[in-house]
Amino acid sequence: MLVKECVPPVNKFVSRTHTCGELKIQNIGENVQLCGWLEYSRTKKFLILRDSYGSTQLIIPEHRIDLQEMAKNLTFESVLSIEGKVLKRPKGQENKHMETGDIEVEVKSLKVLNMAKSTMPFIIREYNKAKEDTQLKYRYISLRYPELQKNLRLRSDVIMKIREYLIRECNFVDIETPTLFKNTPEGAQEFVVPTKIPGQFYSLVQSPQQFKQLLMVGGFDRYFQIARCYRDEKPRHDRQPEFTQLDIEMSFVDCEGIMELVENLLAYSWPEESGELTVPFKRMKYEDVMKLYGTDQPDLRIPQQLIFHLCRLTELIDHSILKQNLKMEQNENLEVYALVFSQKHNSFTTSIKDTISKLQRTYFPSVKLIQTKIPNTSAITNIIEGNVQQKLNLREGDVLFLACGEKVHTQSLLGKIRLEFANFLENKNQQIRTSKNELLWITDFPLFSFNTETNSLETMHHPFTRPHSDDLQYLTENPLKVRGLHYDLVMNGFEIGGGSIRIHESKLQQEIFKMLNIDESPLMHISDALESGAPPHGGIAIGLDRLICLLCNTKNIKNVIAFPKTMAGRDLMSGAPVPISEEIKKLYHIQTVEIK
Amino acid sequence: MLVKECVPPVNKFVSRTHTCGELKIQNIGENVQLCGWLEYSRTKKFLILRDSYGSTQLIIPEHRIDLQEMAKNLTFESVLSIEGKVLKRPKGQENKHMETGDIEVEVKSLKVLNMAKSTMPFIIREYNKAKEDTQLKYRYISLRYPELQKNLRLRSDVIMKIREYLIRECNFVDIETPTLFKNTPEGAQEFVVPTKIPGQFYSLVQSPQQFKQLLMVGGFDRYFQIARCYRDEKPRHDRQPEFTQLDIEMSFVDCEGIMELVENLLAYSWPEESGELTVPFKRMKYEDVMKLYGTDQPDLRIPQQLIFHLCRLTELIDHSILKQNLKMEQNENLEVYALVFSQKHNSFTTSIKDTISKLQRTYFPSVKLIQTKIPNTSAITNIIEGNVQQKLNLREGDVLFLACGEKVHTQSLLGKIRLEFANFLENKNQQIRTSKNELLWITDFPLFSFNTETNSLETMHHPFTRPHSDDLQYLTENPLKVRGLHYDLVMNGFEIGGGSIRIHESKLQQEIFKMLNIDESPLMHISDALESGAPPHGGIAIGLDRLICLLCNTKNIKNVIAFPKTMAGRDLMSGAPVPISEEIKKLYHIQTVEIK
Repeated sequence: MLVKECVPPVNKFVSRTHTCGELKIQNIGENVQLCGWLEYSRTKKFLILRDSYGSTQLIIPEHRIDLQEMAKNLTFESVLSIEGKVLKRPKGQENKHMETGDIEVEVKSLKVLNMAKSTMPFIIREYNKAKEDTQLKYRYISLRYPELQKNLRLRSDVIMKIREYLIRECNFVDIETPTLFKNTPEGAQEFVVPTKIPGQFYSLVQSPQQFKQLLMVGGFDRYFQIARCYRDEKPRHDRQPEFTQLDIEMSFVDCEGIMELVENLLAYSWPEESGELTVPFKRMKYEDVMKLYGTDQPDLRIPQQLIFHLCRLTELIDHSILKQNLKMEQNENLEVYALVFSQKHNSFTTSIKDTISKLQRTYFPSVKLIQTKIPNTSAITNIIEGNVQQKLNLREGDVLFLACGEKVHTQSLLGKIRLEFANFLENKNQQIRTSKNELLWITDFPLFSFNTETNSLETMHHPFTRPHSDDLQYLTENPLKVRGLHYDLVMNGFEIGGGSIRIHESKLQQEIFKMLNIDESPLMHISDALESGAPPHGGIAIGLDRLICLLCNTKNIKNVIAFPKTMAGRDLMSGAPVPISEEIKKLYHIQTVEIK
Repeated sequence: MLVKECVPPVNKFVSRTHTCGELKIQNIGENVQLCGWLEYSRTKKFLILRDSYGSTQLIIPEHRIDLQEMAKNLTFESVLSIEGKVLKRPKGQENKHMETGDIEVEVKSLKVLNMAKSTMPFIIREYNKAKEDTQLKYRYISLRYPELQKNLRLRSDVIMKIREYLIRECNFVDIETPTLFKNTPEGAQEFVVPTKIPGQFYSLVQSPQQFKQLLMVGGFDRYFQIARCYRDEKPRHDRQPEFTQLDIEMSFVDCEGIMELVENLLAYSWPEESGELTVPFKRMKYEDVMKLYGTDQPDLRIPQQLIFHLCRLTELIDHSILKQNLKMEQNENLEVYALVFSQKHNSFTTSIKDTISKLQRTYFPSVKLIQTKIPNTSAITNIIEGNVQQKLNLREGDVLFLACGEKVHTQSLLGKIRLEFANFLENKNQQIRTSKNELLWITDFPLFSFNTETNSLETMHHPFTRPHSDDLQYLTENPLKVRGLHYDLVMNGFEIGGGSIRIHESKLQQEIFKMLNIDESPLMHISDALESGAPPHGGIAIGLDRLICLLCNTKNIKNVIAFPKTMAGRDLMSGAPVPISEEIKKLYHIQTVEIK
């Protein structure tokens, strides 16, 4: 039977008449049927029934001793179905903090659908007080917490909007690609999956990169997928062994095309409650962003009036003075950068100083860092005289950081100090960041970086990124000068996506493989595909878990995933991963090796 | 920049003005830019340019010797970008078989975006002539074949419609659940994934069954997911190691609710080109469908006027005669069924007879099968006299099959014969099946079956299926009499989905585990969840690969999957699965065991 149009979407095919979040003044007098969880009860008469959509107060009439007896024995979180009549709450008893706070439902019949045990690990309202391990172990209870309900529903909404935009507004095709594939040369550590063929393994894809390019070769000129990806990387707070990315690829497109598409896509899908979004996004070149912020993921919500950006001093400083004062080895690649915190921030305590010193020692031991308060009395006075003094416009009370070393490290150290200081101030309840969302494209990345340890070229992103046409001339002679047609998308200081125009010519691809020392043989299908009529193409991947985190304004990625694993990759609910039987190992021709 | 509304969806963010499938009479005189693949060329002057949307004829003007020179050297499947003017084709040269057959585009400029090699493994138009291995190896070329383009686009469309219906019309939430999980007791063979913790493995989920139920416990009362699932089962023609199912679960619902939802959902998502769909679907009980068709996946497109259904004779036949004539052992569970092919089918050749004999010998050796033509002269004459003769209404020329044995085997054998015969006739170009789609719910399955080999109860579907309330009384005494609240959805003779109302009470679940000899300890989280306020709930899973096959009217599942694997689970394009390095094995503490 075709469903009647008059039933609201949320109640189609079930017997309730309303959810627990919707009854209002205008429903007074109606007979309703509700289903939900007993959140709270008092004096056998008042019950709070909760479902995914809200809570409703139930009242058991004085004369219904039978129902009062039932209510007395109900455990919290038991599942109930009730029928009753909507009443206006008595004057003065309205609850403004409750969507349904103007009404209550007088219970006529009550059915216990399932009694909950009396020893629940935590009360839903106090979810936040439970230890994370407990929250994860009892995830099926945690999910009732309104914030998690809200986040996962917002996730579903945003992803649906993304699909609508891509399919309905832009004629993209949603195509599923395999996850059981072959190990990728380069790239992240991939999980392996043994097969019944002895010694042969699938790898779980770290992204649909190869497939999306092959789809372009196959003529699907506008592809997307909400793709499950897998990486077995080192544990990190915001990392899960499996994650989801919005994967997009187009043929006959240039950087501009992809960036415009993404801007329009996000503008279309942006939830109202996630704050303002300005389109088009800002754009900066990698070189500039590193120079100013010491990171390629700058948080532009930190205003420069409050915390100034980095300042390059390399050419203003006499390197011999530097050498003398900082005891640096002579090195023509030496760069000097300054970062000044104005005297307004007179909160430069020992704790932040310690954090900064530790940062330098742990991550940038090769960079010399000087920290001083103006007026300074130390040996560096002569460094910061004249031009430098003028450029930095130092004033009494300012705190100055001077860093000297290899370029990227020097920039990065000061960039991290800048961020640490902003966070430090915010933790002290000083409002630093503006509330507006800051989205930023980073472009003009170098195609390669140079690994001094292995003495070899490495790709900054992946080996399929197309070099900038203007820079093809440098490919052999000066590869580090070659820019890639790559773009990263940064939101509020986090990278949420990245992509590139890809190499579509077989010859160029082979050359890049060679320069990167990548064995082409496991990638023969790619080389052959590029020879078989590959259109120019490019795309992007957007990390959905991270994006949804930012849209939900939560820092913990576990708050936007239904069943997350711990940092160590364990599912505390089921205990996975677990030992498997010898029989299964035999089936897959594997044996566990003892650790020596 | 927000995109201009006037650009058609398919051309947004790229520089072409039209696709190769859309230019018509009304475009004559327009200057256009097209991108595509060179499908064909002749006399240096006529080119056919193809993209995902169609083909367009290009014409190079007489005086453009430069372009003619270029055209001469182009290989088929090279990627071109052209600018030109739309002209009306000269009278008599229109092509009615081509969407763009009324026009041609006079080329003004031509750019070779990527030259294809001259030795392509096959011509796109002749894709069907290539061997399947070749098609799969060069999947990135195969995908250009219009039928594959059409199928994958239809797949994307149908899935989008499904999402729209569930989210927009029914308030469902799309929730992603993990694929790296723990091995399931019971169920299909699951792939295992070693971790960096020695001896501990994830399993790839065979379905989100546990998660969907836990989501219900967690208060998400309307969940769905287009879920990737994994099974490492025996190779079969229509089976892939990874596959996709539409996974649905609801709280506070009964069988009716789920069935109505699915009917409305399919009606909403049904593509026009896939033929008629009648809602509501037919319904039959398991008992009845087995009795009539000898299968729980009957193809109702085979009309009974042409091929009659099975006929139960057990009670009409004197078992002593049976015993004597068929040399069956005495067995009170013996069933006798007949299947009659009317004399109209005088095409009962040796080949179909052989097929049937083989069927019986291979799959149903315990069933006695007699085949005879009326009037028969064999020893069974006395069996089919009197009542039987009357019931079957046998006429001269009819072919009669009489099967005798254990109930399900007897029914199944005749069911398979019925189907074989229908296929046989269709292969001989006799139209048997009607063209209307036949969707059918099968209900009232038994909850358990009895495995005579292990002498133990087995679940007909899975251990979470709820017993029919009316039958709870038989649970201890006569469990085989208990029906499960399970429903299968059958389309045109194929099971496309199945689901059930689940057990929501911990006690009942434990009892069922015990009856099925399932160790509860790895499922403690399920038992605990059922004790923590689990609502009554139920759902369904629909096999999307199979459904899309039926909608695309293709029998080969590889025709609706972008990058399918062979029956043996191999990706012929990349070669996966492949050996992995010793280093990786060490990382995961595994070793390959030699076969002895």
